[in-house]
Amino acid sequence: MIDNKQIELKTRWDNIRREMEKAGADGMLVTSNVNLYYLSGRVFSGLIYLPVDNDPIFFVRRPVGISGERVVYIRKPEDIAAYFSENGIKTPSSLMLEDDSVTFNEHLRYAAIFPGSKIINGTPVLRHTRSIKSPYEIEQLRISGRCHTKVYEMIPALYRPGMTDNELSIEIERQLRLNGSLGIFRVFGQSMEIFIGSVLTGANADNPSPYDFALGGAGMNGSIPIGANGTVLEEGTTVMVDMGGNFTGYMTDMTRVFSVGITEDIAYQAHDAALEIQRRILEIAREGTPAKDIYNLAVDIANESGLAEYFMGFTQKAGFVGHGIGIEINEPPVLAPRSKDVLRNGMVFALEPKFVIPNIGAVGIENSFVITESGIEQITLAPEKIIQLG
Amino acid sequence: MIDNKQIELKTRWDNIRREMEKAGADGMLVTSNVNLYYLSGRVFSGLIYLPVDNDPIFFVRRPVGISGERVVYIRKPEDIAAYFSENGIKTPSSLMLEDDSVTFNEHLRYAAIFPGSKIINGTPVLRHTRSIKSPYEIEQLRISGRCHTKVYEMIPALYRPGMTDNELSIEIERQLRLNGSLGIFRVFGQSMEIFIGSVLTGANADNPSPYDFALGGAGMNGSIPIGANGTVLEEGTTVMVDMGGNFTGYMTDMTRVFSVGITEDIAYQAHDAALEIQRRILEIAREGTPAKDIYNLAVDIANESGLAEYFMGFTQKAGFVGHGIGIEINEPPVLAPRSKDVLRNGMVFALEPKFVIPNIGAVGIENSFVITESGIEQITLAPEKIIQLG
Repeated sequence: MIDNKQIELKTRWDNIRREMEKAGADGMLVTSNVNLYYLSGRVFSGLIYLPVDNDPIFFVRRPVGISGERVVYIRKPEDIAAYFSENGIKTPSSLMLEDDSVTFNEHLRYAAIFPGSKIINGTPVLRHTRSIKSPYEIEQLRISGRCHTKVYEMIPALYRPGMTDNELSIEIERQLRLNGSLGIFRVFGQSMEIFIGSVLTGANADNPSPYDFALGGAGMNGSIPIGANGTVLEEGTTVMVDMGGNFTGYMTDMTRVFSVGITEDIAYQAHDAALEIQRRILEIAREGTPAKDIYNLAVDIANESGLAEYFMGFTQKAGFVGHGIGIEINEPPVLAPRSKDVLRNGMVFALEPKFVIPNIGAVGIENSFVITESGIEQITLAPEKIIQLG
Repeated sequence: MIDNKQIELKTRWDNIRREMEKAGADGMLVTSNVNLYYLSGRVFSGLIYLPVDNDPIFFVRRPVGISGERVVYIRKPEDIAAYFSENGIKTPSSLMLEDDSVTFNEHLRYAAIFPGSKIINGTPVLRHTRSIKSPYEIEQLRISGRCHTKVYEMIPALYRPGMTDNELSIEIERQLRLNGSLGIFRVFGQSMEIFIGSVLTGANADNPSPYDFALGGAGMNGSIPIGANGTVLEEGTTVMVDMGGNFTGYMTDMTRVFSVGITEDIAYQAHDAALEIQRRILEIAREGTPAKDIYNLAVDIANESGLAEYFMGFTQKAGFVGHGIGIEINEPPVLAPRSKDVLRNGMVFALEPKFVIPNIGAVGIENSFVITESGIEQITLAPEKIIQLG
């Protein structure tokens, strides 16, 4: 088990070092929790120095008690300079920092440890490497997908007439947690915030949000304007459930739609159009498919359906139909019109064609998929039709 | 209501501008969600430019539909430069950016909008200003405190023999949410992560964590090593509940301790010592008290009690006994030995003297307090003794 873990980590280091070498970097200093986790299999307070030509050194501040031959306890980042000089480790002439994650002042502080080093942005290398999942990571995502599916299958039993969107959300959150959800929802970048996910119904589905999630909702309070807003689930409306599934440190994404009683024809039509978008995208999604082709195909089918005005939002539209997933909910590839990403074997992504029908709610589908050599594998498996509640 | 909101916001702008003037800044560009919320009363995707001598301009990317005379829709931050030149707004000769929040690359991007501007770190000004709460903000914290208290009073009824720490946590989370918790837990800085809070029992209370929270716990998964780890609540152990209360966009912090049946004498003694620390700190906590004096008094009383080895952790100790709270859980003042903070009227802080007794669990207390001209006000009010479960 420890051997397997070491092999897994070593493969990750090798993959990153190949990219570092291409970019002319001698070393990389990693400090963000998600990348510490990716490079070491654990979250700690400290820094990892990954040289292009050797195993990483783990500089740990907290917790106490981590052992390992390349583990070095430090009080502060500046202690790294002394360690390098005392141990005859050569200072990198060019150093990668996570310049899309570290703050401006953190960058200055880390750069000052290695005066004279040229600093290169390491974030794209880390995100690109992380976008291709290993068999171990894919298995973590499959496990998350199975737990996620199990909870979604309980949703009809959680519904009670007269409950609000927020109350239904709370019961789903509880079942997610009871089935192993860690709760935490990791997002790359600082501008997107959400608590586990969202339940959207009726007119609230069309409330525009500041966040770059696919759909909006007003939220319960101006301090977190996204998702459920306390609307009572009313006969004839749809209820869209889009909750993150983080059961393993790796997040799956899945959306399912319910109706309170029977909803309008246009909602069923739009839902079928979303399923058709998913079906036809799955025919082209494989190693080598440009991400933008997937987006464009989705838009073409939405246009064919005559429902384009509702596609990916009505009052405000999202500019993508899917996104990579992993330790964070928004990894490469992004399935958007100007994306330069190309699908590769080992990529895992969420595809979420959705429509917002004013005053009725949102419909559509979201599933998580793995691109494999033998085809595309769906890892979120709850029933896809609109399920009637009550 | 709108008038009151405008007066509230204008006071905040004035307070910040006073600090900007002292620091020689002509303008400040704010982009983080918490500070956008503080300066505008809402979260949006965009930027606020606050000149030292005028009202702010709100540059909004999303959502659609925000109106107001100083609201300007932009596609990207660079559009601000054109707006300045078209409207004859003078470029700041010195500009504050949130250099402890924005990433290195965001800093470069924002700085490039104002070529020639000297950049000054605005984060300390924002954090300092936010640390003194207005009557409106104190009322939001009081509301959070009342909801938080109500849920904590339900905890004995949520307990079932044989349940795990995580299962109890899930039932408390559900009650928090049903009583209005927004769920989201905002932390300043990127290194601390937690899902709502923690429940610690038995040996797990002494598991060291990487995070700078007061206590640790192994967590349920290596990707988020904090809090409950699935330990069954056993006769004779303590159960410490420390969950964030975010009911209004402003967070209260409260910890209460329960025992499964009767616990050990040492646990009751340590709990009493924590209550004594709280009592004696409340005698000195007022406008003008140095934050470090509070920390030192806590340590002195812990020493007097003969239980110093358990104070603020056993295997690993936290280096503080309290922290400011507000929109984020870790605002100034920090109650730590080398803190330069001084208590001021309007400050709101959590005081959390705690002890970890190996194999038994954690004991102690945490409450949220407001420093007012007429004395210190406790806003989290659940009973403070160890309550027996079952």
